Amino acid sequence: MRKYSVSFIGSGNVATHLSKGLKANGHQVRQVVGKSFINSLHLANELQCEAVRKVEELSDDADVYLIAVKDDEIKHVAEKMRFRGVVAHTSGTTNIDILNASSSNTGVFYPLQTFNKNKPLDLKQVPFLIEASNEKSEVILLQLATELSQFVSRANSENRKKVHLAAVYVNNFTNHIFKIAADLMEKEGLSFELLQPLINETIRKIANDHPANTQTGPAKRNDQDVIQEHLRMLEPYPNYSEVYQSITKSIQKGE
Amino acid sequence: MRKYSVSFIGSGNVATHLSKGLKANGHQVRQVVGKSFINSLHLANELQCEAVRKVEELSDDADVYLIAVKDDEIKHVAEKMRFRGVVAHTSGTTNIDILNASSSNTGVFYPLQTFNKNKPLDLKQVPFLIEASNEKSEVILLQLATELSQFVSRANSENRKKVHLAAVYVNNFTNHIFKIAADLMEKEGLSFELLQPLINETIRKIANDHPANTQTGPAKRNDQDVIQEHLRMLEPYPNYSEVYQSITKSIQKGE
Repeated sequence: MRKYSVSFIGSGNVATHLSKGLKANGHQVRQVVGKSFINSLHLANELQCEAVRKVEELSDDADVYLIAVKDDEIKHVAEKMRFRGVVAHTSGTTNIDILNASSSNTGVFYPLQTFNKNKPLDLKQVPFLIEASNEKSEVILLQLATELSQFVSRANSENRKKVHLAAVYVNNFTNHIFKIAADLMEKEGLSFELLQPLINETIRKIANDHPANTQTGPAKRNDQDVIQEHLRMLEPYPNYSEVYQSITKSIQKGE
Repeated sequence: MRKYSVSFIGSGNVATHLSKGLKANGHQVRQVVGKSFINSLHLANELQCEAVRKVEELSDDADVYLIAVKDDEIKHVAEKMRFRGVVAHTSGTTNIDILNASSSNTGVFYPLQTFNKNKPLDLKQVPFLIEASNEKSEVILLQLATELSQFVSRANSENRKKVHLAAVYVNNFTNHIFKIAADLMEKEGLSFELLQPLINETIRKIANDHPANTQTGPAKRNDQDVIQEHLRMLEPYPNYSEVYQSITKSIQKGE
């Protein structure tokens, strides 16, 4: 397969993992430009490529430009780009159209995962959702994605936004549920770690069965005595109580 | 250490795991009585002990009686018991007082885990919360618990109820969050399994760090554009939307 030259806009968690992955697959990382020039240099040093200080300084000879910056910075960055190569962003929530002025070959290269540049991660297991404005761009982005990962799907912007919404539930909202539980435990002088085996078992269950089949608890069996006692205990925490009530209602009534 | 004879009221998931665990530690399971006599026989056959048909038929010579039935059946069962041995229930939400008429030696033997009798489980990793009405009962229950598990704590009824409430969040509520995500994915023709790597990473993070430190997402960074678009996408699902709004508010405002 053909090898490409890829420049990265962004030097954070996503840019770090994707650039290393592409280089490991024999592609050339051409240039890196991040908000922090020092971070860009660190990443460029690791990749043995060049760091530049401004988006305007990117050379126009790369085959692909991957924008891996915060969602609300994509527009700002894209406005400064005008290239013949494929320009793609890596955001779950952002429309492909935001790149229209940057190239006639645009795309989205969305990894459905939470990244930390300091933690190793097996990209092979990360699902990628790919969108492109034309066939030429799609061929290139699909090749790159299938080299990185075993799980690659096409998804248009509306489709991808729904997946991102689902991801917000399983990642951000689950994290907050754990935060609430940690608070409740710690106020009793008990460690959140005591809940770790229960969390592991909860996850093990849904890895083997659909979550519609594994629901248990007072809401599911409509045990009003327990629910009312829980609400009494939650009186000092009105926001945690609202979370309790909304999830209990949703368990009982569905969507 | 002294070995005890233990009778089980209940033949379900909890009774199965605890009775096998106690037998494996050299204690004698004396009798089993469950709601279904057939289930009781199955469990008794595995344990090579006796099954009886009614609580009233339990012999009065066991050292310990462990009640592992549904929360709302404990009272009903306890009313039929009057023994010299230690009578303990295994419920997170139920007060120890419910056993007052059953024995002068009562206790609670609460395993902080979700059980499935058909799935193997390492009891050593299951936290147990122990309460007792007197020292004699506490000594016996603590011995049994520490033989089964590495993680044993004392907890009074109010304490234990708060822990159970935290457990409802991490187990039942997390499961429902996954159910919502599965619905959203499947309505887009995508498999819930695509979210599995993200779920695994979410859990890996909080196994290594406190969930207060790992919160990310549109609620945390107050990205109103994304939040408003998510609420628009959730319009067909008013209960899922309420869950979204309550958790978003709780992330932003705390307890």
